[in-house]
Amino acid sequence: MRLFSMPSSGNSYKVRLLMSLLGRQCDTVDVEYETEALDRAKAEGRLPFGKAPVLELDDGRLLPESNAILFWLAEGTSFLPENAFRRAEVMSWMFWEQNQHEGVIAVRGALLFYPQRRHLATPERLAELLERGHQLLQVMEDRLATQDWLVGDAPSIADICLYGYTHTAEERSGFDMARFPAINRWLARIAALPGYVGLGE
Amino acid sequence: MRLFSMPSSGNSYKVRLLMSLLGRQCDTVDVEYETEALDRAKAEGRLPFGKAPVLELDDGRLLPESNAILFWLAEGTSFLPENAFRRAEVMSWMFWEQNQHEGVIAVRGALLFYPQRRHLATPERLAELLERGHQLLQVMEDRLATQDWLVGDAPSIADICLYGYTHTAEERSGFDMARFPAINRWLARIAALPGYVGLGE
Ligand SMILES: N[C@@H](CCC(=O)N[C@@H](CS)C(=O)NCC(=O)O)C(=O)O
Ligand SMILES: N[C@@H](CCC(=O)N[C@@H](CS)C(=O)NCC(=O)O)C(=O)O
Repeated sequence: MRLFSMPSSGNSYKVRLLMSLLGRQCDTVDVEYETEALDRAKAEGRLPFGKAPVLELDDGRLLPESNAILFWLAEGTSFLPENAFRRAEVMSWMFWEQNQHEGVIAVRGALLFYPQRRHLATPERLAELLERGHQLLQVMEDRLATQDWLVGDAPSIADICLYGYTHTAEERSGFDMARFPAINRWLARIAALPGYVGLGE
Repeated sequence: MRLFSMPSSGNSYKVRLLMSLLGRQCDTVDVEYETEALDRAKAEGRLPFGKAPVLELDDGRLLPESNAILFWLAEGTSFLPENAFRRAEVMSWMFWEQNQHEGVIAVRGALLFYPQRRHLATPERLAELLERGHQLLQVMEDRLATQDWLVGDAPSIADICLYGYTHTAEERSGFDMARFPAINRWLARIAALPGYVGLGE
């Protein structure tokens, strides 16, 4: 098993984080943004949707999409509940992350972080993403004000998935996280899990 | 069980289509875009993420996100494979749909379809979405050129999910579907499934 992973990207980090929490080893092929390694992985057909991360099984089968890889790795572990409704709730948060949260929180971070994207970072665009992002973070805040984890009473891949871009929402994406005390406590709970690794580690 | 459903929306239609294919009955609460019914559903806390569709169970539990509802309904049916890797592949396509396909194919359709959005439909935006959408449809075309269904050898919720906005990609969203013969054959296969209903039915 090996992971095509972009070191700077939250989507790839989610997978590295879950692997580490599960104590699983995995070879990693670094495919950083705008590097030859990324072009090569694409040219060799290793990134079916043209994006990282992708998990390659030992028999060559390829699994793209960070959240689908989390689902595959978490099956049979405590990070994916057995209860059918709870599993579906985990999926709700993960689809919401890909449809709403990632397109705002991660995208604002990418506009500010990658020099190649900075020309797209107009003041209007940044302001619109800021407002929308604070609304989305409020959805998480409301949930986490009444429970420690997004679904049920234990950490699941819903938490790992949303941790990916939420934990850099202030430093990278410029959101005002002082507004969200329950999110901050949740971020600290995740960082205290045994096996935790940070984005740069 | 009742479904808060937006009659004009592909995300809500996916769920109605799967229910019909499974022969399941369900009360529907229509919450059309910019209607009082939508405002009321939001005010009464029935749309946890502020969007339709949402499935409400008989005990009041709420499940938002179209693809999470498909997952919940399909569990234990032929629309969600038993094989673990195939299940994960189904998830890949569904996350890709929410992260890439929906934000381009559906969004271009919404810009053209809903009069309230037309001021956002600048020629540059429409041209960019057209080019990106044709690239995304090519990903589906390549897959469907060698197999009848997106995952494995039977229709799954990956197909139902992607049918939602692909089947109106020409008439609503303005994509040139003559370029994609394998997608067109796949659309016809889905429309021929027993229990099929159309978007407007
Ligand atoms: N929905 C995908 C998104 C992956 C994605 O956007 N990857 C970016 C880095 S964050 C990438 O590989 N970009 C390279 C490119 O587009 O060339 C996932 O969750 O895995
Ligand atoms: N990711 C969500 C998206 C749902 C969504 O965008 N719903 C739109 C209609 S297509 C909506 O309810 N809009 C109402 C609003 O934003 O006020 C899903 O797949 O269910």
